Amino acid sequence: MAKRNIYIDNIPLEQAQKLFQEAIKECSIFQLTESIGVEDALNRVTAEPVFAEISNPHFNAAAMDGIAIAAKKAFGASEKNPARLKRQVDFIHVDTGDVIPEGYDAVIMIEDVIQEDDETVLIYKSPVPWQHIRPIGEDITATEMIIPSNHQISPVDIAALLAGGVMEVTVYKRPKVAILPTGTELVEAGKPLKKGDIIDFNSHMFANLITEWGGEPNRYGITKDDYEELKENILKAVSENDVVLVNAGSSAGSEDYTSSIIRELGEVVVHGIAIKPGKPSILGIIDKKPVLGIPGYPVSAFFVMELFVKPLIDRLTRRQVKARKKIPATTARKIVSSLKHEEYVRVKLGTVDGKFIATPLERGAGVIMSLVKADGFVTIPRNLEGYEAGDTVEVTLFKDFENVKNTIVAIGSHDPMLDILADILHRNYPNLFLSSSHVGSMGGIMALRRGECHIAGIHLLDPEDGTYNVTYLNRYLRNEEMALIHVVERTQGLMVKKGNPKGITSLNDLMREDVRFINRQKGSGTRMLLDYYLNKINIDPALINGYDREEYTHLTTASAVLEDSADVSLGILSAANALGLDFIPICGEQYDLAVPVKFLEQGLIDPLLEVIKSEEFAQALERMGGYELKRIGEVKYLK
Amino acid sequence: MAKRNIYIDNIPLEQAQKLFQEAIKECSIFQLTESIGVEDALNRVTAEPVFAEISNPHFNAAAMDGIAIAAKKAFGASEKNPARLKRQVDFIHVDTGDVIPEGYDAVIMIEDVIQEDDETVLIYKSPVPWQHIRPIGEDITATEMIIPSNHQISPVDIAALLAGGVMEVTVYKRPKVAILPTGTELVEAGKPLKKGDIIDFNSHMFANLITEWGGEPNRYGITKDDYEELKENILKAVSENDVVLVNAGSSAGSEDYTSSIIRELGEVVVHGIAIKPGKPSILGIIDKKPVLGIPGYPVSAFFVMELFVKPLIDRLTRRQVKARKKIPATTARKIVSSLKHEEYVRVKLGTVDGKFIATPLERGAGVIMSLVKADGFVTIPRNLEGYEAGDTVEVTLFKDFENVKNTIVAIGSHDPMLDILADILHRNYPNLFLSSSHVGSMGGIMALRRGECHIAGIHLLDPEDGTYNVTYLNRYLRNEEMALIHVVERTQGLMVKKGNPKGITSLNDLMREDVRFINRQKGSGTRMLLDYYLNKINIDPALINGYDREEYTHLTTASAVLEDSADVSLGILSAANALGLDFIPICGEQYDLAVPVKFLEQGLIDPLLEVIKSEEFAQALERMGGYELKRIGEVKYLK
Repeated sequence: MAKRNIYIDNIPLEQAQKLFQEAIKECSIFQLTESIGVEDALNRVTAEPVFAEISNPHFNAAAMDGIAIAAKKAFGASEKNPARLKRQVDFIHVDTGDVIPEGYDAVIMIEDVIQEDDETVLIYKSPVPWQHIRPIGEDITATEMIIPSNHQISPVDIAALLAGGVMEVTVYKRPKVAILPTGTELVEAGKPLKKGDIIDFNSHMFANLITEWGGEPNRYGITKDDYEELKENILKAVSENDVVLVNAGSSAGSEDYTSSIIRELGEVVVHGIAIKPGKPSILGIIDKKPVLGIPGYPVSAFFVMELFVKPLIDRLTRRQVKARKKIPATTARKIVSSLKHEEYVRVKLGTVDGKFIATPLERGAGVIMSLVKADGFVTIPRNLEGYEAGDTVEVTLFKDFENVKNTIVAIGSHDPMLDILADILHRNYPNLFLSSSHVGSMGGIMALRRGECHIAGIHLLDPEDGTYNVTYLNRYLRNEEMALIHVVERTQGLMVKKGNPKGITSLNDLMREDVRFINRQKGSGTRMLLDYYLNKINIDPALINGYDREEYTHLTTASAVLEDSADVSLGILSAANALGLDFIPICGEQYDLAVPVKFLEQGLIDPLLEVIKSEEFAQALERMGGYELKRIGEVKYLK
Repeated sequence: MAKRNIYIDNIPLEQAQKLFQEAIKECSIFQLTESIGVEDALNRVTAEPVFAEISNPHFNAAAMDGIAIAAKKAFGASEKNPARLKRQVDFIHVDTGDVIPEGYDAVIMIEDVIQEDDETVLIYKSPVPWQHIRPIGEDITATEMIIPSNHQISPVDIAALLAGGVMEVTVYKRPKVAILPTGTELVEAGKPLKKGDIIDFNSHMFANLITEWGGEPNRYGITKDDYEELKENILKAVSENDVVLVNAGSSAGSEDYTSSIIRELGEVVVHGIAIKPGKPSILGIIDKKPVLGIPGYPVSAFFVMELFVKPLIDRLTRRQVKARKKIPATTARKIVSSLKHEEYVRVKLGTVDGKFIATPLERGAGVIMSLVKADGFVTIPRNLEGYEAGDTVEVTLFKDFENVKNTIVAIGSHDPMLDILADILHRNYPNLFLSSSHVGSMGGIMALRRGECHIAGIHLLDPEDGTYNVTYLNRYLRNEEMALIHVVERTQGLMVKKGNPKGITSLNDLMREDVRFINRQKGSGTRMLLDYYLNKINIDPALINGYDREEYTHLTTASAVLEDSADVSLGILSAANALGLDFIPICGEQYDLAVPVKFLEQGLIDPLLEVIKSEEFAQALERMGGYELKRIGEVKYLK
């Protein structure tokens, strides 16, 4: 039974939110409360005010270590005329917290008590009745309200409640949220994978988001694409939970049954929202409980969780939640968007020259790493075609503002050692971050020109004189005083499958019919290097099968070779090593970090420079292989 | 064995922190890591960078629902000259995520595929090779770094790790923190209490703070004041945990063994810190593990947790933590402090007339309610005698800034119905808070004069004409346009123990030798009422046993009667009812809220006024008893 259901709506976000709000008004889940032990109540929200059962203290207590007396027995005591008091007759010793017995109404601090003999003390100052006594109820009086309703319980509140004799509190129930991963292609994380299998990681993201928001996730096993089985599991989830999330099955593919099932069992309120990513979402209700169909792509799923599920959970938990902080930033690049959708573009932020620069990350809805790396996102409204480079945009922050300010932004050529550098930097300077975007050497130079980054990794050969990098900085950044931090000499070569099954030995083999090449993107140093060599040995790129197939990093092309999607690519030895590929060396090349002198002078790059020169980094490069470390960390000023 | 050990140091905070930092350098607890399942890793911090095991996707996958083809078979297709493709021969159907098999290199979206017959489709646009295909590693490439070390793992990170085939991560261990409540007077919460017993609530505050900070609390049972037993338990706690907190036993009382034991088993680094509250703290080390003696008073304990334990736990968990926000505010009252200590004064904040006003709360170290109510605290440095009213001080916030801005500040006469009002207000307006401080009617009027609050509960009789409140506002607030919100008529009378064992029938009985009175503070409406009646019937206050013994609320004096610390007090019927006391009515009186007209005009008070007039509030007052609700919520403008 392959139902085709390709017509989905494109309802604006606000309207979808409003329709959903209206629809869930009749839901039965908003007043669920339970009585729990105070000791287990951290961060839960009270459904009723809580009143003290007893007073604290519940007796008059000594507030000091010393002696308890009847004040009138020492009235008028002075330096000249001390009061002389007898143990047990006139006074008793008390420690802080001890009961003040009937007949006593003052405490004299031990420091003010002079021992005359074993039985007698002298007091040199007239006491005030009730001095140094904590009266009954000083802290909490029986029947007073300790905390009101709708109050999120803190550690201090727990102490006060216990002090007031309260052992149980009535709180809002944590919403039970069913998570149903669906799809025949899904496999549980950790299981062996065959081609076509997709690891179900979304459901774990959902579960952890729900936990973080104060709900109780209830993750079910994977449901195959079977209408009846899915229907049965949705019914079961509805009966066992307060909210149900069905993952995938919300677009219009042949195996997407979710909307049909919700319609059959209840009501589809919205199917298709004018947001990107996240369009094919379903907002429905079954049996007075919200049932949402969440798209399968992780980034789509994340935004639908953020826009629809979080507000719902917040309402159910009653926690007071802070909206994400928003800051203005300058977009580094043009961002084009469709008029049909409100779009969420993940961005990396950096403070360059005192202003926040937002650099868009990969926009594919399947790229969860764009969320891992993002500092926040820019919302592009419907009916807006996007932003020009240099426009001021509002960035909704994922991360702490401070972290954004403490990020060294690197844009440029990819090398796996940048990951290692970022790691060692952050380990040694916990408040400092290195963020790297891989757009190739020329992309890095352009980013420096636009003031989009602090440093750019580049390896650009000048074919005229065989030098690296200097020529390009002089050409493209002539208005900026620049320096080059030398990092490594690295080895470029042909990456081929283990054992080199196609017997590739040189660039000439790229012309062979049976050899599938995979290339790096235009503007990358590696692409320019390839073109330089092809030109030198007179090979026409049009003759290379795959010359136009481009990827952005050494590791991605290496992975394509590893997974047999291509036979060969040009890349660096450390990438081949990382993936266990064979390697035919072509040449060495120089990899530097280009940096405006002003950043060096501001001291911003000092920690990074220190890490580059460290023994720890050298050892890591040694392990990766393919790097020559002579002159590592040398700084060359260009003008 | 009663050791007296009254000499403790008074080391400045910074020096104590430095000494402790130095001393724990040799501790063995800072590099403890463990490998855990990714699914359990939410909010844990990586001890190593985490690299992808596999690529995501690990095969070339359809990025759209549609058909997969070899691109060259449709090269040149156009509106006029479509490509005609045969099922299985030229194309196969694919859904998003499906494998692109060998020999295919493009996907045509289903929307662009025109079905000619069951076996044939038409394509009207020439495809680009690799279009709508997610290449291997588009999201994550095997061996790339997913997250660095020292990174707190988020729900999105968990998804990315699982997508990258990572099932385990090495993270810093959650520090195990032993909590040892000590003291013969302590009893477990929920157990029956006898005089002198103190509920051990501190240890639960500690446990929940540790949980909140990401540690693993390990709460032990109560240890009695027995040197050998305590020593044994401390040794056991040290062997089973990373950090040990011993509660109480850190001052110089006769049963305070902690410092002696730490000295015997290890080293006391600091005993006695120049902070208030918190002075008698002990910072020690046993067996290369930090062992802290935390004072017994809950507020002292809280600040020592905040100043010493939190930084330690943060260092161990490696979480990035935000410092508490600080804001400038105007102190409403003079705050006097000793030159010997750095002092932390809990304050309530309100925005009155656009500026933050900080009103000090009760300063007793035993008053945990001062922490429950506090919005933050003011730090008074050593060598400063305090602040004058009107000084600008820095407030370190406990609560969210927004909540502080949305608080209606009430200062004035106490009535238990204010708790109920606060609760109903917050329940109906979740973003709105009512904070009440009880300083008596005259105190409330003075607070209004100083611009310290929005409203003041008052019940002040003019003996001349029998009217309430108006005379006093005209006298003390003549420069401000004022209004009175009428709330209730309430009944004042003598509160006596159930069954009235002393046979008290009128104010004349207060002069009896065998009758212990407890009074309200000067400036409270109830005190003024008492004086009015005593004067009327010619009773000399000096003849009343307890006339000088003052408390600040109806509930506190009622509690003293309940607990047999006094026989009688003047108070309101609802307080007597709340504590089950007998009551001899004396008179009715009018309780109003005084409010500057400007606040009424600003709309600030509207929600409160609405709640005062609500059926819900009326019913609550009915249940409490002793209130007459005629004219409730009536607003009277004075000028």
